[in-house]
Amino acid sequence: MHIYDLDTPAIVIDLDVLERNIQGMAAHCAQVGIPLRVHTKTHKIPEIARMQLAAGAIGIVSQKATAAEVMARAGIADALDILIPYNIVGLPKVRRLLELTRWATVTVAVDSEETALGISQQAQREGYTVRTIVELDTGAKRCGVQSPSAALALAERVAGLPGLSLQGIMTYPSSLGVKPFLQETVELFHRAGLPCTMISGGGTGAEAISQEIGCTETRSGSYAYEGMTRISGSKDLSPERCPVRVVVTVVSTPTPDRIIIDGGQETFTSYPPKPYGLIIEQPQARIYSMSVEHGHVDVSQCAHRFQVGEKLSVIPLHAEMTSNLHDEVVVARQGQVEGVWSLRGRGRVR
Amino acid sequence: MHIYDLDTPAIVIDLDVLERNIQGMAAHCAQVGIPLRVHTKTHKIPEIARMQLAAGAIGIVSQKATAAEVMARAGIADALDILIPYNIVGLPKVRRLLELTRWATVTVAVDSEETALGISQQAQREGYTVRTIVELDTGAKRCGVQSPSAALALAERVAGLPGLSLQGIMTYPSSLGVKPFLQETVELFHRAGLPCTMISGGGTGAEAISQEIGCTETRSGSYAYEGMTRISGSKDLSPERCPVRVVVTVVSTPTPDRIIIDGGQETFTSYPPKPYGLIIEQPQARIYSMSVEHGHVDVSQCAHRFQVGEKLSVIPLHAEMTSNLHDEVVVARQGQVEGVWSLRGRGRVR
Repeated sequence: MHIYDLDTPAIVIDLDVLERNIQGMAAHCAQVGIPLRVHTKTHKIPEIARMQLAAGAIGIVSQKATAAEVMARAGIADALDILIPYNIVGLPKVRRLLELTRWATVTVAVDSEETALGISQQAQREGYTVRTIVELDTGAKRCGVQSPSAALALAERVAGLPGLSLQGIMTYPSSLGVKPFLQETVELFHRAGLPCTMISGGGTGAEAISQEIGCTETRSGSYAYEGMTRISGSKDLSPERCPVRVVVTVVSTPTPDRIIIDGGQETFTSYPPKPYGLIIEQPQARIYSMSVEHGHVDVSQCAHRFQVGEKLSVIPLHAEMTSNLHDEVVVARQGQVEGVWSLRGRGRVR
Repeated sequence: MHIYDLDTPAIVIDLDVLERNIQGMAAHCAQVGIPLRVHTKTHKIPEIARMQLAAGAIGIVSQKATAAEVMARAGIADALDILIPYNIVGLPKVRRLLELTRWATVTVAVDSEETALGISQQAQREGYTVRTIVELDTGAKRCGVQSPSAALALAERVAGLPGLSLQGIMTYPSSLGVKPFLQETVELFHRAGLPCTMISGGGTGAEAISQEIGCTETRSGSYAYEGMTRISGSKDLSPERCPVRVVVTVVSTPTPDRIIIDGGQETFTSYPPKPYGLIIEQPQARIYSMSVEHGHVDVSQCAHRFQVGEKLSVIPLHAEMTSNLHDEVVVARQGQVEGVWSLRGRGRVR
């Protein structure tokens, strides 16, 4: 079956392109000399995580215990290593985290004594020990302790809490300016006799920097769908680099310079910056606006005359947020459908 | 159970506010003297559609046959009347449209001969007759024929096609400037002896205008979640008017002026204009940025000292797009949970 024969809108992943991205990043990290841990939130699909691990990734990252559990239960690797770089707060989430340690080697990040205490108390109660790292805010201004001395203080607290096993530190994203903060923290840990075998950096495109600033691993995710854009420096949407396509149907040709496609905000995501995506078959066509169910396309620069019922393939500007709106993707090679994969990690809000 | 005891992030609908919105719009349309047809894409929840019909709505609107089918099968009304104001193109969709006519009174809009022919051919083949209206582009520049004479030409074609039963016209949105286009079209239909018993206008806030320009019904949807904002003129997010809340947990308090909540783009939707939403408990707090899983909140203007683990209720700026990211909502009254409703119409991409 050709992808044009799919009912629309349909999310399609070109397997040749996806494989090239996965192999490309694996080769890049091998060359740079930094172990790669893959972020599954980009795709939420166990089949893709399995491909990434088979290409050499040391483990996965998931910001939710529920989403991680989906991957663990899908049996994507014999000895799965999961990092949850997110403060797990509240009894239901802590319980899920503890349960997850039955399925995989799990490490969790904390940036406060409250979060560490919450995990420790329940882990002790249920007889678990959780590998724990301290999150540093090295300038991204999101979560994380604010200074090397604050990292040391929290690490000492973690090391003293039952049910927790201190492993090291993490930051996001990796950048050269982060090096002094990271080195000073490592130095303080060593002087205090605290373990620091895991130093996790991250950000697609920051692999070489993670290596250079002394990380023991680097977290990357969006490369699967964006290709090596952040490494090559090119951000253009390209069918050779971007595996995700939204196959749509032209449902109206109301004027010579405008067509309407059957994908809008509910298909592509809301309020992306224009032009929303690239129409592979007609790159001169410009998606200039979206209603909830309609995509508005300016075709004034196209010589082609569009017909109602015609199929088009759009590379969405935000592949991760676009695919997250859907429950499944069709996988294809050279336009021929090879299967359907579920976003098993989607909608795991809790 | 209090909504603060929910695992987070959780989408909560305040039933008192929702009921007030539904009753308010019903009263408004009754006073104006225009029959109301409710758009279910706003919520995708049969229970809410049932409330809207019980309050007097004459039927529902759905832009997808699949989503309409969900409502029809949920038995939300004894004799359900459904309008699909969308060009149904392609055999799978046409078949679903025909099947839907077994469950409800169904009317579909077309704006081209191609779309009309596609439905006609299959309807004739399967022995159906489909109520059909002609969509006018009265200035919104989306779908729709461009002039009254073009509307007449398409209507004559529709009237002559087997399997279609011409009913009238539709436009979106209703505005006073539309009146001449609409009146001229109705006049042309009458002179040609074509039926025009259905004149459908729409847009939340345009109910009085629909009546004034001669529509037989008005389509409104977002009032359920936005309240009467477009009628009152106030667009402020308010707990008295907006029933949708995202209950989140404070997962980090890294600096005195910043907290991080466990809801980001995957919970709220991507790239909304700032400030993303209103935190009911602390209106001075300002959600200024969102990562995929983190909400970044400026609390420098708050006297309150936030704690890790604290729950907050956020009114999202885009309730419809926010709820569309989730599979279910918790319904509550005065903070007490009363049940869980599924977004049964969500993810019906085809």
